[in-house]
Amino acid sequence: MRTIIIGSGAAGLTAASTLRGYNEEMEIIVVTKDKYIAYSPCAIPYVIEGTIKSFEDIIMRTPEDYKKRGIDVLTETEAKDVRDNKVELSSGEKIEFDYLVLATGSSPFIPPIEGRELEGVFKVKSLEDGKKILEYMKNCEKVAVIGAGAIGLEMAYAFKKRGLDVLVVEMAPQVLPRFLDPDMAEVVKNYLESLGIKFILSKPLEKILGKDKVEGILVDGQTYDVDMVILATGVRPNIELAKKAGCKIGKYGIEVDEYLRTSVKNIYAAGDCVEVIDMITGEKTLSPFGSTAVRQGRVVGKNIAGLKETFPPVLNAAISKIGELEVGGVGLTAVAANLKRIPINIGKVKALSRARYYPGGRELIIKLVAKDNLVVGGQIIGYERVAERIDLLSVAITKKVSIKELSTMEFCYAPPVKMVKEPISLAAEKILKQE
Amino acid sequence: MRTIIIGSGAAGLTAASTLRGYNEEMEIIVVTKDKYIAYSPCAIPYVIEGTIKSFEDIIMRTPEDYKKRGIDVLTETEAKDVRDNKVELSSGEKIEFDYLVLATGSSPFIPPIEGRELEGVFKVKSLEDGKKILEYMKNCEKVAVIGAGAIGLEMAYAFKKRGLDVLVVEMAPQVLPRFLDPDMAEVVKNYLESLGIKFILSKPLEKILGKDKVEGILVDGQTYDVDMVILATGVRPNIELAKKAGCKIGKYGIEVDEYLRTSVKNIYAAGDCVEVIDMITGEKTLSPFGSTAVRQGRVVGKNIAGLKETFPPVLNAAISKIGELEVGGVGLTAVAANLKRIPINIGKVKALSRARYYPGGRELIIKLVAKDNLVVGGQIIGYERVAERIDLLSVAITKKVSIKELSTMEFCYAPPVKMVKEPISLAAEKILKQE
Repeated sequence: MRTIIIGSGAAGLTAASTLRGYNEEMEIIVVTKDKYIAYSPCAIPYVIEGTIKSFEDIIMRTPEDYKKRGIDVLTETEAKDVRDNKVELSSGEKIEFDYLVLATGSSPFIPPIEGRELEGVFKVKSLEDGKKILEYMKNCEKVAVIGAGAIGLEMAYAFKKRGLDVLVVEMAPQVLPRFLDPDMAEVVKNYLESLGIKFILSKPLEKILGKDKVEGILVDGQTYDVDMVILATGVRPNIELAKKAGCKIGKYGIEVDEYLRTSVKNIYAAGDCVEVIDMITGEKTLSPFGSTAVRQGRVVGKNIAGLKETFPPVLNAAISKIGELEVGGVGLTAVAANLKRIPINIGKVKALSRARYYPGGRELIIKLVAKDNLVVGGQIIGYERVAERIDLLSVAITKKVSIKELSTMEFCYAPPVKMVKEPISLAAEKILKQE
Repeated sequence: MRTIIIGSGAAGLTAASTLRGYNEEMEIIVVTKDKYIAYSPCAIPYVIEGTIKSFEDIIMRTPEDYKKRGIDVLTETEAKDVRDNKVELSSGEKIEFDYLVLATGSSPFIPPIEGRELEGVFKVKSLEDGKKILEYMKNCEKVAVIGAGAIGLEMAYAFKKRGLDVLVVEMAPQVLPRFLDPDMAEVVKNYLESLGIKFILSKPLEKILGKDKVEGILVDGQTYDVDMVILATGVRPNIELAKKAGCKIGKYGIEVDEYLRTSVKNIYAAGDCVEVIDMITGEKTLSPFGSTAVRQGRVVGKNIAGLKETFPPVLNAAISKIGELEVGGVGLTAVAANLKRIPINIGKVKALSRARYYPGGRELIIKLVAKDNLVVGGQIIGYERVAERIDLLSVAITKKVSIKELSTMEFCYAPPVKMVKEPISLAAEKILKQE
């Protein structure tokens, strides 16, 4: 029996490792266009800013490491077509499979504007992108980052830390529109502005200017001199191969059932290329996170190994470290709720990360979103101890914890690590008091 | 209408503030033996070690602050008796009440051994205790800490940091027996030993030696020269006044119902002096934590204000910062399960607090305890990001999250703050693989 996995990102390689963990016999082949595998794209901004020393550091495993576990990784190899239980490679070779996993990931969305092909325009997706940026920025003084999502802001901070002038351009009226409300986003923007980063919000990039290489950008009719442009304008699922294989495509990505099976027998899909279900709204959505890819890869690996494993709806728990700030969000935002006309309640508190008198405590802002007296969303900004609180809220939302329960929930306490009253409980209490 | 609250610890003062928050009219009087109020006893070791500059820093509020909110705090005043809806003060004055709150707290347990009255023997309970220790230690070189609970180990570290020779004596065969299993406790002991702190386990203190002041201790027939002894041998609920008031006393402390009412009408009790229900075993237990006291104080305050609020069973979520280490536990330990012959499964992992390649990541050890496929306990040792994971487990245990759910739960990810696979999920997976 042979399983072919297309894609060597978090989903593909996790599927391979998991399947091997439960099945010693299966032949496993990973086919990937990439040269480097098993690295974390989320780490690119931290190499750019210099916190991680080199791009070599973020490569966790080589094809040889996988070979030792009986997993063949064919790098720099494209899967051109899927037909009759065979994958056709760019070489023309056709390999038969018993199971196929489409872990084709996503590609950066490149806005269809003039100048996008100029030298000095970069996306932030692959390790090669990162290397090119690191090289090119040596001769740059001013950079424009297009898109104020997590990767955009992490890159903006990285460039600023490296001494460049940074301008961020975002079409939405706020930064981090995917997981923060405007009031919370303002805190992040203010922080970055205090470091000297400039912002243009609510305006699209109109044009990239320059002859051979970037010399400026045009936004809202105005020219800004920059010598480098970073497109951090989101990603789109790679669904071409799935289409060729005859898999049903949904509103956003490859359609899968709860076992992550596509509409074609013995073809699974996982990672950025599939669409998933939003736990709160029940609607289809995307979940382009490394953590989701890993979880889906595991589900696919187990299912091919014969275990019955399902992938549950998502909350899109997100965390970003932007300079000193740790910014997280999970579940429904107030903005999204209003768009969908979902009635909600809000509780927001400013607290501290340690007891008031304990040195080093920093501000912690927590916003909870409640629907029908249940917690359905949370946003947290702080300087420490944010990520695990997002995770705690993820558990609470998943398990339908009520605002009342959250307000009286048992939490630990010691002055160096906490206030005696957990700020999440204080935010919940604020909601209760509105009733 | 008048409410009298006996005790100015976390339970008493929280009850007072909460009641005032919901009822503007009620006369509220707090009666306390203490001179200083509204400080955190948990902070004492951190003043001793010098991280917090002075004991004045840990006082959060004064009686005058409470007066402004219409709460009278009678300091250095003892409540001698309770009879016919009146509290008799040490002055002989009798004050009538409509509601009474017994928040009498606990007292350090002083082992009944020779030499316990010598100069240089201290307990660690009140701010005055802390001040005396800070003064006395100036002339000391060697200190024995009796008891290796959280406060004992925090004090041991503090003394070591201040340059003293430190010997810890513990009757139990391990440190932190209340919330860690022996294998986890060993990690903490090894850390403290690496700093030069010495341990004698499984042996009781037999005698404190010296003429007027401490000169040594006797343990297991052997003499150890020390010039200071810290008794950190646990606390006992203060139940004398409750007895005089006719309140039923349970196995461990004042008996209360889910509304924290004692057996006597209009008398409530909260904090270290009451016994509570263990969420896992259903048995009576104590919960001498500041966080529990605050939560109970709120419940009592709300109930007297006419809101119906219940106090749920406890998991005794605990966290301690001992030097660089952050050590936490919640719910059932394997040791306790074995004693009670509760069949359990264990999953334990060593992981990192950040992505492998991200600088500054430190070891994180997570141990989960499962019963009937549900998570019922957790212990975590690390250098960062432990406390919120304990809180996450507290939510998970309370909401009866299964090991399977925990293994596939959605968690956030970014390289500076997390591994892509949350170690709690990895520990859960270890349990699943045993099946």
